[in-house]
Amino acid sequence: MLDPVRNVHAALEHIAHPWQPHRVATINNYELKAVKLLGDFVWHKHDDTDELFYVLSGHLRIDVRGSDGEVTVEMGPGDVYVVPRGVEHRPRAAEMVTALLFEPRSAVHEL
Amino acid sequence: MLDPVRNVHAALEHIAHPWQPHRVATINNYELKAVKLLGDFVWHKHDDTDELFYVLSGHLRIDVRGSDGEVTVEMGPGDVYVVPRGVEHRPRAAEMVTALLFEPRSAVHEL
Repeated sequence: MLDPVRNVHAALEHIAHPWQPHRVATINNYELKAVKLLGDFVWHKHDDTDELFYVLSGHLRIDVRGSDGEVTVEMGPGDVYVVPRGVEHRPRAAEMVTALLFEPRSAVHEL
Repeated sequence: MLDPVRNVHAALEHIAHPWQPHRVATINNYELKAVKLLGDFVWHKHDDTDELFYVLSGHLRIDVRGSDGEVTVEMGPGDVYVVPRGVEHRPRAAEMVTALLFEPRSAVHEL
């Protein structure tokens, strides 16, 4: 049984609330998720996995606490950024951002 | 040391030849790759991994030999499709397609 084709933009149209990733596809034990981002998220980190952000529309800022101190990553449409495992980060969207996330199926976003 | 932001569209501008995926980002032991597709590829399969296609522009056909026989998957911009491991498939692009692939770093595309 083959999975159907899914459209990322159609998936985003059905997302009502920011910060709630919706699975679009599964590849082995990884998932591609569509998400809307609006406002400031909290500082957090993922100890077991890197996390990929891919911005489709809007302007996303990700504050990152790296080994060189705190920096703010600025992302626009088509931009890809990977937050390494264990690195504290805080996404911020002054206006609505649509994005894709790529991470292991086991990744947890609850606080 | 943090990786820089990469732009998918800028990466595609630097790709001269179809069927040669270029890595855009690494997430754990997986890679996001930008690729141009033009013409017919050969039938092949990946025994150890699923493979995700995400079409950015153009119209992509993927012939797939599933358990129900051969079907042709039709994909346009924003469409995502996962070819399951072990399933024979043949991508075809009558005109230039730009796409992203997501798969394990170890995946081999050589024939």
